[in-house]
Amino acid sequence: METAILTQSETLTLPRPLALDCGRSLEGVQVAYEAYGSLSASRDNAVLILHALTGDQHVASPHPITGKPGWWARMVGPSLPIDTDRFFVICANVLGSCMGSTGPASAAADGAPYAMRFPVITIRDMVRAQVELLGALGIEQLHAVVGGSMGGMQALSLAANFPERTSAALIIAATARHSAQNIAFHEVGRQAIMADPAWRGGDYYAHGKGPEKGLSVARMAAHITYLSEAGLTDKFGRNLQDRSEKTFGFDADFQVESYLRHQGIAFTDRFDANSYLYITRAMDYFDLAEEHGGKLANAFAGSSARFCLVSFDTDWLYPTTESRQIAHALNAAGKPVSFMELSAPHGHDSFLLDVPALDRVIAGFLRQ
Amino acid sequence: METAILTQSETLTLPRPLALDCGRSLEGVQVAYEAYGSLSASRDNAVLILHALTGDQHVASPHPITGKPGWWARMVGPSLPIDTDRFFVICANVLGSCMGSTGPASAAADGAPYAMRFPVITIRDMVRAQVELLGALGIEQLHAVVGGSMGGMQALSLAANFPERTSAALIIAATARHSAQNIAFHEVGRQAIMADPAWRGGDYYAHGKGPEKGLSVARMAAHITYLSEAGLTDKFGRNLQDRSEKTFGFDADFQVESYLRHQGIAFTDRFDANSYLYITRAMDYFDLAEEHGGKLANAFAGSSARFCLVSFDTDWLYPTTESRQIAHALNAAGKPVSFMELSAPHGHDSFLLDVPALDRVIAGFLRQ
Repeated sequence: METAILTQSETLTLPRPLALDCGRSLEGVQVAYEAYGSLSASRDNAVLILHALTGDQHVASPHPITGKPGWWARMVGPSLPIDTDRFFVICANVLGSCMGSTGPASAAADGAPYAMRFPVITIRDMVRAQVELLGALGIEQLHAVVGGSMGGMQALSLAANFPERTSAALIIAATARHSAQNIAFHEVGRQAIMADPAWRGGDYYAHGKGPEKGLSVARMAAHITYLSEAGLTDKFGRNLQDRSEKTFGFDADFQVESYLRHQGIAFTDRFDANSYLYITRAMDYFDLAEEHGGKLANAFAGSSARFCLVSFDTDWLYPTTESRQIAHALNAAGKPVSFMELSAPHGHDSFLLDVPALDRVIAGFLRQ
Repeated sequence: METAILTQSETLTLPRPLALDCGRSLEGVQVAYEAYGSLSASRDNAVLILHALTGDQHVASPHPITGKPGWWARMVGPSLPIDTDRFFVICANVLGSCMGSTGPASAAADGAPYAMRFPVITIRDMVRAQVELLGALGIEQLHAVVGGSMGGMQALSLAANFPERTSAALIIAATARHSAQNIAFHEVGRQAIMADPAWRGGDYYAHGKGPEKGLSVARMAAHITYLSEAGLTDKFGRNLQDRSEKTFGFDADFQVESYLRHQGIAFTDRFDANSYLYITRAMDYFDLAEEHGGKLANAFAGSSARFCLVSFDTDWLYPTTESRQIAHALNAAGKPVSFMELSAPHGHDSFLLDVPALDRVIAGFLRQ
């Protein structure tokens, strides 16, 4: 595969305050984004990619901290499913995150980090910032909006709340509302962070490293939900880590323990704990039907977009039933929708991994 | 229902050292137990109940700390499925726990608590202590051994390793080995405890309350795995806690958050964090096939017991497939086994809750 060529990596400062669902508004919001490919003269070939909870704008460029390839480098580039020879591909760091867009680690008007003074935001607030970015780039209507997991929630929200802004929406491994179990897992993560004395009520920025242990535990718990039980068994089973016998101790005897600990610790190098609190809260608050009078079909009443929904058979975080409910609502609203459950062993994380059927679905949907 | 009459609540001190799987042995092991009903003259009516991870000997008597009814008061008593008019019912706190049996909070030879000097124990070690108790009570062979979850693991281990000790084994919502996902969830809990500075490497006994925040997070994460997704949705859905609107804050807006926080905090009043580390480790180490040359059927070669296996259709911690593998192994070993999956909405915790079909299975199996 050819590597995508980054054509723009910039930070836009919104010229006007961003009004939020909580009733507050934020001044001077920054939106860090990347773009690949060229915008056509008629400005009709833009594809907006929306990232997941811990993702960022580095969709197909190396991550500046980890040095790893962009999180969807396998999907975005010349001749790849999201073809940068054809499409002008944009990906922006979400509001509330920590990779250049305004979030709790950003300076408030008094020059100190917002920390917990940052307003509680919603998925719709994130989308408002994305729409402001489109305006600044002179894009009235997207060819398509594409997102997996929390990116799929944003794609749904954009199609519902800014229907004139996109002619197609591709939603992968997502849900139209967070379930009690989803909220419960996020709450465990938040409590793990807040239980860490290094969190200091959120005011840790001037005090070294912050709540790394709590954030690591939060990531470990979440990571389990991203993988399937069968996938974990195939990958690790009960294999021991660099030893032939159990040690009768509390070291990471099992490979799965060592892997999880590594996932937790590595995460703290690249992510802000307060951003984790705010973004998980936004996801928990997400209930697209509730925003539209309690009926999901109503959310799509104003849309003239084509929809495509994809779920994975081993995803137990946002299982196929969640996508099916969205498909039913779109059908009830009389909107064009294709919906497919793909078979893949990786659980929720399948949308980030090597699933050739997903490549074909995305390429095919964007070509229409 | 009539209340069970406690006939004995005692602590036995083992007269000889208990040899452990790790190679060490423990001197002066104490086993706190309760008994209900009367042992028959022929000593053939004893039923040993084995408790789960955070259970204890108070199977049908009020818990001394919480004041709540015994954890299986609905199952154990006169005319109840485990009928104390008919059976002599015994339940002992497991080795490594904190309700009177020897564990990490107990005094070592130097008078100070073992803390992390306590040896890493196994499910089989717990069973060794139970068998010593049977010896002290003069019970050569049990009428039946009964256990759910980790209690089921002990029941399997007892039937496999001490086959002469029981004529029947009833195993509920259990597994013959901990899966990678099971280990992963336990590791999250252990890391949450160890990340709490109040844990102090395990030496917190002389320093106030110990790692309450870490233990609370561990309990919250585990608690999610005990419930079904549908059960959580039925019980809580996205209902708000004592408010009509979201607060756009980090309070427990949702009932499920409030419930989980309560579960976490309440747990720290009654459980020792180091015990949680040791008992989860014992469960992770459990692999009955591995103990018997890698073939589960071999584990049961010496047994002449009747077996009954029960799983619940909404249990995703130890799902039906786990019980089915045990049933296959018992069939391969030519042992009498009945196996049923019961339908119940509560997930793994179904074995503790009101599931009338379980009552009938238990009563019927014990009557044979």
